[in-house]
Parts: sequence; structure tokens; C-alpha cells
Amino acid sequence: MNNWTLLYEDFDPAKENLREALCTLGNGYFATRGAAPESEADEIHYPGTYLAGGYNRLKTDIAGRVVENEDLVNMPNWLLTKFRPEDGDWFNLMSVDILFYRKELNMKDGVLSRTVRFRDRQNRESTLIQRRLVHMANMHLAALESTIIPENWSGRIQILSALDGTVINAGVERYRQLNSKHLEPVKSGEVNDDIIYLLVETNQSLICIAEAARTCVYFEGEQIEVERKLIEEPGYIAHEFFIDLVKNKPVTIEKVVSFYTSKDFSISEPALDAVEALKHTGNFKGLFDSHIMEWDHLWDRCDIQVSDNDRTQMILRLHIFHLLQTVSRNSIDLDIGVPARGWHGEAYRGHIFWDELFIFPYLNLRIPMLTRSLLLYRYRRLNRSRLAARESGFKGALYPWQSGSNGREETQQLHLNPKSGRWLPDNTHLQRHVNAAIAYNVWQYFETTGDLEFMATYGTEMILEIARFLASITSYNRELGRYEILGVMGPDEYHDKYPDSEKPGLNNNAYTNVMTVWVLRTAIKALNQLNPKRRHDLQETIELEKPEIDQWQDIIHKMRVVFHDDGIISQFEGYNELVEFDWEGYLKKYGNIQRLDRILEAEGDTTNRYKASKQADILMLFYLFSSEELHELFKEMGYDFDPQIIPKNIEYYLKRSSNGSTLSNIVHSWVLARSDRPRSWNLFNKALESDISDIQGGTTHEGIHVGAMSGTVDILQRCYIGMEFCKELLHLNPRIPEGLQRLMLKIKYRGNWFDINITPEVLAITSSRYRDIIAKICFRGKIYEIKPGDTLNFDI
Amino acid sequence: MNNWTLLYEDFDPAKENLREALCTLGNGYFATRGAAPESEADEIHYPGTYLAGGYNRLKTDIAGRVVENEDLVNMPNWLLTKFRPEDGDWFNLMSVDILFYRKELNMKDGVLSRTVRFRDRQNRESTLIQRRLVHMANMHLAALESTIIPENWSGRIQILSALDGTVINAGVERYRQLNSKHLEPVKSGEVNDDIIYLLVETNQSLICIAEAARTCVYFEGEQIEVERKLIEEPGYIAHEFFIDLVKNKPVTIEKVVSFYTSKDFSISEPALDAVEALKHTGNFKGLFDSHIMEWDHLWDRCDIQVSDNDRTQMILRLHIFHLLQTVSRNSIDLDIGVPARGWHGEAYRGHIFWDELFIFPYLNLRIPMLTRSLLLYRYRRLNRSRLAARESGFKGALYPWQSGSNGREETQQLHLNPKSGRWLPDNTHLQRHVNAAIAYNVWQYFETTGDLEFMATYGTEMILEIARFLASITSYNRELGRYEILGVMGPDEYHDKYPDSEKPGLNNNAYTNVMTVWVLRTAIKALNQLNPKRRHDLQETIELEKPEIDQWQDIIHKMRVVFHDDGIISQFEGYNELVEFDWEGYLKKYGNIQRLDRILEAEGDTTNRYKASKQADILMLFYLFSSEELHELFKEMGYDFDPQIIPKNIEYYLKRSSNGSTLSNIVHSWVLARSDRPRSWNLFNKALESDISDIQGGTTHEGIHVGAMSGTVDILQRCYIGMEFCKELLHLNPRIPEGLQRLMLKIKYRGNWFDINITPEVLAITSSRYRDIIAKICFRGKIYEIKPGDTLNFDI
Repeated sequence: MNNWTLLYEDFDPAKENLREALCTLGNGYFATRGAAPESEADEIHYPGTYLAGGYNRLKTDIAGRVVENEDLVNMPNWLLTKFRPEDGDWFNLMSVDILFYRKELNMKDGVLSRTVRFRDRQNRESTLIQRRLVHMANMHLAALESTIIPENWSGRIQILSALDGTVINAGVERYRQLNSKHLEPVKSGEVNDDIIYLLVETNQSLICIAEAARTCVYFEGEQIEVERKLIEEPGYIAHEFFIDLVKNKPVTIEKVVSFYTSKDFSISEPALDAVEALKHTGNFKGLFDSHIMEWDHLWDRCDIQVSDNDRTQMILRLHIFHLLQTVSRNSIDLDIGVPARGWHGEAYRGHIFWDELFIFPYLNLRIPMLTRSLLLYRYRRLNRSRLAARESGFKGALYPWQSGSNGREETQQLHLNPKSGRWLPDNTHLQRHVNAAIAYNVWQYFETTGDLEFMATYGTEMILEIARFLASITSYNRELGRYEILGVMGPDEYHDKYPDSEKPGLNNNAYTNVMTVWVLRTAIKALNQLNPKRRHDLQETIELEKPEIDQWQDIIHKMRVVFHDDGIISQFEGYNELVEFDWEGYLKKYGNIQRLDRILEAEGDTTNRYKASKQADILMLFYLFSSEELHELFKEMGYDFDPQIIPKNIEYYLKRSSNGSTLSNIVHSWVLARSDRPRSWNLFNKALESDISDIQGGTTHEGIHVGAMSGTVDILQRCYIGMEFCKELLHLNPRIPEGLQRLMLKIKYRGNWFDINITPEVLAITSSRYRDIIAKICFRGKIYEIKPGDTLNFDI
Repeated sequence: MNNWTLLYEDFDPAKENLREALCTLGNGYFATRGAAPESEADEIHYPGTYLAGGYNRLKTDIAGRVVENEDLVNMPNWLLTKFRPEDGDWFNLMSVDILFYRKELNMKDGVLSRTVRFRDRQNRESTLIQRRLVHMANMHLAALESTIIPENWSGRIQILSALDGTVINAGVERYRQLNSKHLEPVKSGEVNDDIIYLLVETNQSLICIAEAARTCVYFEGEQIEVERKLIEEPGYIAHEFFIDLVKNKPVTIEKVVSFYTSKDFSISEPALDAVEALKHTGNFKGLFDSHIMEWDHLWDRCDIQVSDNDRTQMILRLHIFHLLQTVSRNSIDLDIGVPARGWHGEAYRGHIFWDELFIFPYLNLRIPMLTRSLLLYRYRRLNRSRLAARESGFKGALYPWQSGSNGREETQQLHLNPKSGRWLPDNTHLQRHVNAAIAYNVWQYFETTGDLEFMATYGTEMILEIARFLASITSYNRELGRYEILGVMGPDEYHDKYPDSEKPGLNNNAYTNVMTVWVLRTAIKALNQLNPKRRHDLQETIELEKPEIDQWQDIIHKMRVVFHDDGIISQFEGYNELVEFDWEGYLKKYGNIQRLDRILEAEGDTTNRYKASKQADILMLFYLFSSEELHELFKEMGYDFDPQIIPKNIEYYLKRSSNGSTLSNIVHSWVLARSDRPRSWNLFNKALESDISDIQGGTTHEGIHVGAMSGTVDILQRCYIGMEFCKELLHLNPRIPEGLQRLMLKIKYRGNWFDINITPEVLAITSSRYRDIIAKICFRGKIYEIKPGDTLNFDI
């Protein structure tokens, strides 16, 4: 098995949807999936779940009244390229005998290729070889190359090469009742005889999307002229032409396409620039060369090599690959966040949740300017979040659980349980912890890059306003002399209220409370490191005065965390009173109980009654903080913190978790890394399978899980290498599981690149030759200097 | 005289156009000028020459064929607020007796106000007091407050408050034959009874522009309800209502307006977001308070205090003020450059020339993230510039002389001489030196900020591609053993070809040749400071190999500069053969000979025949480089450089310059600063008058000259203080003219703020308390350390 390639050697219509998601091509600006030329057989003939930044779910009229549901917007389908013998059917995988099939995602080159040998009803045998790319260096370009070899026949074939703006959103079964049509035709036409273009406009956001295409034919290495017939319908344009095929002589059809939107920088008008771009773009070969060079440079920075079996290595690369399909250097300054499902499918409608917490650590260490840009997605929605806080009766900034294009709360108010067919109230917007995740991401970016200019202009203001919001949702319990946070949800979506209560929300979710303390402490730290001028102005602008900061200090010292059973942190107040769940019985009964919530609801029961978590959210604390940091946090709050409680809590909650989220395996693998390396390694390998094996049984075809993909990669780098960034130092404290025989990666820390190479015995770190900087690193608590170009070796 | 205020105490219709330009309000996102409510009397009732980034001059169809001329786009007029007594005429300054008039631009607060007492034809005496702001903290908002006091009458008045999208471009006389209509109505309407909105679309670039307005009435401190009548026409919407006025009782009409475009970040749909924003925006008072707080913070960083007379101080502030109207923190990430005339008028159609060379040094030292963003305007047009170079037969990147929205060359091919009425070929696109200016700006930004991440990702690539372009326009003269650059223009637009030649362009323009050498040297420096990984990838991507860099070295050592008259650098080869010009005769004949080119052309003659410059472009060398730097540059080229030739050259060329550009006085003041301080000070003061006194006689009303405004400020800081940035050090070498008794300013250098305070005897510099950084500065060649919060005093 080639560890650079995702390979399928059979055609299986039942699996095609999943495979298309896994084979999605993108470049951080747009993404493309969907089959061609069998598009007529293919339900999901949309390419590019695309409009960056997440799209508003609710379409409202000008007065803010909801008029219909809105969805993620798709681009016009550019892949649509059909062919048929003059007297035959359009080629369609479903209606031919397949003699050979091979589909191959080459991740090294970022190229998707497919070879099909088939026999049609007229007993014509042919081979079709296709290669497809979405250009990584020039984000406005993509190309599809199709080679047809008539093996036992000669004759004329008809080719149709289209840009189809009549696409609809139909990729997610349960969204089908929502409005699925988002594009209105604006204009289309033909330029220079060989270029067609299509301009459409999104019907809510008024964004114009232009595509232009040029289709050329090559025979025996030479371009041949064809007579193109233009076909135009509203929102649809195509070139149609005929080629005479000669037995055993390959003919190649190249379709080169350009994409622009009215949101793009440096354009005059999207259709004009799309056509212009094509005029100056060469053929497939040239695009291919510059595309793979860019990938070569990308992989040089982004690859992580493990000498495990080839499958582990391949999946790891698949995860890195899909992260870079979603966001890349091309995404910088696009005003996008990272949607939970990438641009690989329509699930979650492109909305941004908290997944960046699992994604940014990888990006920070390789393309920090990208993280900076992704954090600006949040900064630009700070005002909207301030408004949300005010409207909810709080202070500061309340970021939404699901964020879309203008940053308002896009969480659905009802959701469907497909098992029971019932629509249920959705309280997930009470997951206030998304705010802490944003503050954490800002601070991690700063610690990794040392970008003080960013902190002065954007970062500190965000952290302060989030701190202020979290402080404002606390209430002081005089009896206990402690601050509490009432009526929220933690990351565990199995618990959204007390079983006997009508009111949504839970009290004193431990994760939320501890994160609040961390945010408040970090806010004070961030404020104090500002230049005095900026500090003064910022405080004056946001009206932050000393009494408020004093109150933060008070909250830090008196935040409540509920414990039970001698050192077990209660996931929330009252958790211990819940009923133990019959895990064995239900597992026997249902086989897969990852979506226990749906099972119980269909039975008329609810997960709210049980000690059962979708993901055990107090484990997040051990995921985000080292034992030392937790010790410090709990000490500040006035609680004893015995490091021994960590494994005890892990055991306790692992037993009570259904792993209903793809993120659970990541967190569980992580928190076990120090105490139970074999189990951690097992969970890591299980996490690797999340998407490639679609372990949730049917979610991956709606879009891969970027957080889980990125999380696996991060386990290798930050967790197993024990990499931390604090006090302006890179800390290393490896703890390598036995399954991992070798680990090689590169990281960029504060402008300097380091090569890290690990065997079971030795960690070697090399500093690059960069401006004669003598780097300092801290290995297991001791500080070392590395000269440019030098390598330090540490025994593990 | 208040040195924070631009004050006019008379109403002069002939001067109103100029004054409106000088009173333009903006916030770096949009700008507003135009009179209200006398708009009907006012030819230029457009507000906001706006669409950032410069707009394409040529409207082309999809095939690239020119179909009509296109122009800078204006926003719908939001100022339009009219009133009249029920039975009278709409108020109009032209048709009333003005009893008192006062118009005041308060730069400290960023507020334009006006008080008019007048008597109408019915002998009603009234006072109108208006205040207007374009919000600096929330860039989407603006407001106009109008207070009416009926002094000797009571009665009903009618108010009309409109958003008018039927505006046309009519601000520049000589452009009137161009298409002036750029907006198409999309929709309009009324929300919540009190909000109106208007959505229009630009007819070439397909950008949607939304405005929403709420007009409220206050009487004796309380808001009063009025019955609004809605008036809608295509592209126009208004609320009309009546108020009963009571003699001597003031009534106040507040119009609060929001602006969004489809290019904006963090929006759903521009009209929706404009309406939403208004719903959450309070009254004038609240906007006023947050607006002046932002200005207070801005001035704290941006003010430069001189204890000269109040007029000098006031104009200096006017210059800083207008620079910040054009670009500000609100401009960051907008994909704009700095247009030569700001957003203050339609001249030059918002295009970007080389003026940033005079503008960035001020911004670098105060809002460096803004310069970074403005440089990205160029980076995003690098591909377009590569194409331009390729299409002209050169290598690298050829940036256009006039840059617009998509970065293609927008320089007109013909221009009108209003004196002769003739259309003449325009060769100014041959000003290749704009490329050197861009490289210089990138490097200055780096030296001031130390932003290596920017250099690695963007800056170095730009400098390298410009270097490559400039190298590719050289040709080797075997006879002389020197490289030459043939057929270009320098900044001096009086010379665009040899008098006896048909072919445009001149050979060996000294400024271009020396700048080329500087760019090539800097390119090598920038490349070598990259991280080895990035250097490798970048060279591979742009196919830059060692032989090419070796050739750059060869050009550096063998570039030709032509001298004549014993040490005089010839402006270009053959300059010495030109005829001396009869300055005295022409001055006597024409009075003002700044536009000598037009005078001579009208006489059938041409400036190309004479030793006469619009701006003496070799002086730019003494402007951009210190004597030491020039010495090094000439030494590299194999020329002796005696510092004595500097004053000699200055004398020679000053005598032969007509100062036809507003930039000339800046450059001349600068180059004389070391040799002739009184004359330098005089020229500085002359430069201060450029716009406020409209010294070119009629250009300022078409838009102020941002380069000249910024240049005057820069003379104080970099020239008189002798501030330089090189080798990662801040250098100071003051040379204060006698007229300047005191100078106080703040600068941000590599993240740290410094206060600089100068008297004729002492320069005091204070470092801010910032992260315990011990700063190093170099005063007259000697290095000193400053601890946080400490002050160093140097005798001058």
C-alpha cells in the first residue's frame, strides 16, 4: 500500500457518496466533489460546498423576519463533462459493464484520478482515464483531464462540457425540506469561440459567482480544432462538439476552469476576471506542474512521518490533506472560519462551532499567518457578539455556538431525531464554552508566534470581552461564598437540562467554570503585557475599569467546582444524583449506541436521566492543560488538587461515555497518554478511522470531521511529544507509545523552523539557519540553547 | 486662531467647492463631502467618492473590448436633508439673506459644523446649526444633526430626509464627457416605520451598496413623534414629515445613517446588515461621544506639535487629519491602496500612483498594520503585474503607473490640454520608477517594524519580482561596458521623449537607473534574510536561479549614470543638449508657470526641448537616501561620489524647475534641509499651503493631494529630526531650522513607542514601559540604550 494514496479498486454505488467526500479536492478558497462524467447517475452532482465563512441558516427579510430556511451555498457545477457515442447513451457508470476500475487520490500531488475500462450495450469496449485538480498555487483555477481510448471500435463521439448553475443543495437527507435553491442566473456567454462563462448570484447574500471554462481536445500530442456548438439555458451554459475516435488511439479532453466571486480582492467584475484569467492560463500540463510544486512545498512543512504501518501513515496524511483542502494560504484574508465539516459536504451548513480548538494547534506551528486570519473571523464578529451579550442581559461579547456569515447565532431551535421522527427543542446554543475556546485559541496563537502586534490590535480586546461576558454569567452564592454559573451546557450534548426540569441548562458545568477562571486570568495577563498607551485606550474604549478587574480576581479565587465520590469532579452540579446507565444491556440491544440520545428519545426516555455522556467534558480539562497548569488553576480557586485525581477522573468518566462525538476518541487518547500508553495508542488509531471508515455510520458523506482529523495529528505533535508553549519557551516532554516507532516533523515556533526526529530512544531537534538566532528550548524542565543549524539529542 | 480648527466665516459660492474638499469627512472606509441642505444649489451634491481601491477607468465588455469610460464610483447621497416653511421655498443658501455664517472643521473631534443665520423672502429670520460626523470607531455609521431656530416667527415646516442613489459623477469638469452614471437601483423600502433603506448596485463591478437612515426629531430635549410619509422613486427613497415650529424654540433633526457594501466582511446581505446596524445604534449624542473618544486616541498617537504660529500647527493637523480620512485602522484588510487625491474628489478617478512613497513613512511609525495592509494591495496585484511584464516582453512584475481595482494599467492614453483644447498622447505609463517606489515602501515597512513574517510571506516576493523586472529592462552597452535603461520616463512629466523623436521615452533617466541598483541590492539582501526553507521554495516557485542573481550583481556594478558639467548628474542622457528655458520671460508673460507644459503646447512648443522640469527628478535621490547611502550606491556602480556634488546638483536643478507638482516643494524643502535651513523652512511652509490655499489654482476642489499633505508631516519627522531606520536601529541626527522652535511627536518603532521632544537646544527621547524591553537608538552615529520609561537628552 502506498502511504501517499487513498485507493479504491472497485466501483460501489452504495459507497460512492462517502468516497466522494473523502476524495474532495479544495485549496482553502473553494472545494470540489462530485462525480463526472457519471453525473446523471449521481445524486450529489454538486461541486464545491463553498461560500466561505459559513452561511446563514435563516433567510430573513429586511425587517429581520424569518422567511425561509437558507443553506450552505454551492457553486455552479464545473465538472459536468459528458460524452457518448453518436448513436449511444451518455456514458454512465451505472449502465455499462465495468471491466476495470481504479480511483486514486494522490495526496502528494493533490490529484484525483480514475481509470475505468467498460463495455457498453453495443459491446464497445473503452477506457476512460481522468485526472482532476483544484489548483493550490493559483486559487482561482481548476482542471479536469479526460482521456478516452476506444479499444475495439472507431467512431464519432459527442462531448458536452458545461457550467451548471441550476445545482441545488441535496447532500443531506434531513435538510431536504429546506430551501435548496440559492443561485439566480445573471448572465452567460461565449468569448473567443473557445471560452464559456456563467455568472450567477446568490439569492440572499447577493454575491456574484463567475465561472469560465475552456475545453480543448488533444490527439496524438497535438491540439485539434473542433467545432463548438453553444448551448445556453438560464443558469446553464455548455459547449458541445464531436470527435472522431480511431480504434486504440487515445483522445484527451482538457477542461480548464476559473472561478471568481464578487467578494474577491483585486478584481474588476467576477465574470470579466474569470474570462481574463482563462485567457492567460495554459494547458493541463502547465497547471499540473505548478500545482504539484506547491504541494511539494506544502508537504515539506506539513507532513508528519511515522514509521508505523502504511495505513496509519496514509490516514494521517489524509487528515492533513483535508485540513489543507479546507483552509490554506489561499484562505488568508478571506474572512472565513473553519467549518466543522470542511467544505466537503453540506452538513452543519458550513457553520463554525468550537472545532478550531482542535485545529489551530496544528496550523499555528506551520502556517501561523493562516491562524491569524482565521482568528480575525472572530474579531470581525466581536461587535455582533457584544450585541448578543447585551440582548441576553450579559456584558462583554457572547459568541454564538454556531456562527455564520454575519456572526449571529445560527443554531437551530429544533432538531430532528430520525429514529423517532420527532422534532425536539435544541438547547445547544447554551454551550457558552465556545467563548472560552476562542480566547484559548487567541492565546495559543500568541504563545506560538509571539505576535504582539496582533494581540495589541485584536487579540487582547477579544479575550477581555469574552472574560467580561463569562464574568457576567456568574452569580455569587452567599451561602457557599462561591461564584456559580447556572443554566448552561457543557460540550456533552447528552445533558441539556435536569431530567425533572422544564428549564434548559445545567448548573456549574465544571469545564465551563474552570475555563472561565482560565480566561479571566489570561485576560489580566494579556492586558498587562500591552503597551501602556494601548492599554489605556483599549480600557477607555471598552469602559473596563479597575473595579471590574478586581471582581474578576474575586471570581478567580471563589469559582465553584462541584466534586463527588472523593475527588471526582462532577461534570455538573447534581451529576452524582443521576442514574447509572445500563451500558451492557443497551450495547447488546442496539449494537451501536454512539447516538444514545436518539435511541433513548425514541424509547420515550432521555439521556438527561443518566450518568452517560456523549463526550465526557471534564476530560477536556486534562486535554487542554498540563497537570502543573491545572494545579495552579485549582490552587487559585482555593481547591486542593492532587495530581492523582487525574487518572481517577479519567477512569470514572471513560466508563460513562458513549463516544458520540468524533472528538471523543481524540480527547480520550490524549488524556490517557501519560497514564496508559497502549490504550491511548489504541484510541488514537480508532480516531484515525473516524472518517475513512465512517465509524459513525453515515455522517462522513455529509462532510468529513475536520476537528477530529486535525486532532489526531495534534496528538502526535503536542501530546506524545509533550509540546507546550508558555513563558516564551518551547517545552518538550515526550511520552511515546510503544506502537509509535518513529516520528518526524517540522514546526515553526516564533519565526524559526525546527526539525524534530524521534525514535523510541532519542529525541533530536535541529534549529534552522535563520538570522543567527540562538534558540532556547526547554526539555523536561531544563533550558538548552541551540545554535543555527545545530542539533540537540535528548535521551527519552 | 484655534490651531485645531479650519474656520470659514463667510459664505462664498465661488469657493464652496474648494472648501467642501478641505472639509471632507471620512474614516478610511468611506468619505463624505457635499453641502446640505443647500444641495439643490450645489453642483456637487455627491457625498463619498468612495469605492476603495481605485476604480477601473475603462469599462470593458466580457471579451475585454472597451465599451465606455468608467469612473470612480460615488455612494448614494445620504446628506440630502431639505426643509422649508409650509408655504415657502426649500432652504437654499443662494436665495436667502445671510446674516451670519460660520463653518468649522473641528479636527480634534472630527466634526464639521455650520451655523447660518438667514432671512428668507418672507422676512422670516432663522438660525440653522448643523453638525456632521463620519464615525471613526464604527466605520459603517455617519450622522447629521440639524437644529433650526425660528427667531421671529412660528409655523409649520416640511422636512425631507432622503437617500439618493441617482447621483452622478460631475466633480471634475474635464471628465464630464465620460459616463457619469454608475449606480443601478436594486431595492428600497421602509422598516419599523422610522428606517428607510436603499440598495443599489454598481453597473460594472456588480458591487451592492446599501444605506439605511433613521431621521428623528427632538424638541426641548425630548424626542417627538412625527408622521412620516414615504417617497420612493427608482434609486431614491425619502421620509417627509411636518413639524410645528414655535418662535425662538429650537428643534433638532437627527439623521443617523449606516453603510454596507457586498464587499464587506461579516455581513449577511448589505441592506439587511445596514438596517440591523441602525436598529442597534443610538442617537447623535452617543455616536458623538464614541467618535470623539476614538479621535482622542488617534490624535494621541498621530499629532505632531510645533510651537510655530497657530496657522502652521493648524495646517499640519489638517494634513494629518485628511490622511486619516483616507486611510485609517478601518481600512485594514479592505484591499485598497492610497489614491493620489484621497477620497476627497473625483480627480484621477481614485487611482493609485506612486504617492505612497511620501505617505507610508508617516503611517509606518504610527499604524504599521495599516501600511502592511496597504502593501497587500500591491501583493494581490502581483500576478496581474507579472502578466503586464510578460505582455510587454519583460520579466518579473511590472506594476502600472495608474492602478485600479484589478491592478491593470489604467493610465489614460490621451489627455486634454485645456489651454489648447487639444487631446495629446499620454506616455506617462512609461514611468517604470513606480516599481522601485513599491519595493522601497516594502523595505521601509520592514525596517520600521521588523516584520519578518510579512517579508517571508509577501514582501520579499514583491521585491524580487520588481528587481527582476527592472533588470530585464536594462540593456548592455558593449561599447561603454555599462548597462542602460532606454525608453522610460522619470517622475518629471515635462519630458516624455526627445524633442526630435517620434518614439516616446528617454534613455538613462538617472533616478530610474540608480533606483534600479538600489532595488537589486535590496532584493539580494531580502532574499538572504529568509529562512532557508522559504528561500528555497520561493526561488523554486518564481524560478529564480543563481545565474540571474549573478546578472543582478553585474548590473549593480555596471549601471550607467550620465553626468555633465563636472559632477552634475544628467536627469537623463542628452539633458545637457537641451535648450535653457527663459524662466523670467515666461514668468512675466504668464504669471503662473507651474503648468508650463500646457502653456508651451498651446504655443505649439514643448517642454521636451528645454532644461525645464515639472519636478527635478534627480533630487528624489537626495530625498530618499542619505549622503552615506548614496556614496555606497555610487561606489557599487563604480562611480566616485563626492558629497559636495549634492548641493551643486540641488542648485542646478532647483533653478530649472517649475514646481508643477505639489510634491516638488516637499522634495526641495527636504533636499535643502542640510545645506540651507532657512530656504528649506520656507519651502516647507510653501508646501503647507498647497491645498489650503489651492496653490495650483483649481486642483484642490477635485480632491486634496494626500502625498503632499503627508510629505510635509514627514519633513518634520524624518528630515528635520534626521530619522533613519537601518541595520535594525533607530537613527537620529536632527537638523532643526530656526523657524521651528519646538517639535513634539510620538513614534512606534519595532513595537515600542517613543516620545520625542525637541527644542533648539535639546532632543529628548523617552521609551515606553513595555515588556521590559531595553531599546537601542543611535544618535549621530553613537549607540545608546534606553530603559523602559527612561528619557535620554541629547544636545543638538
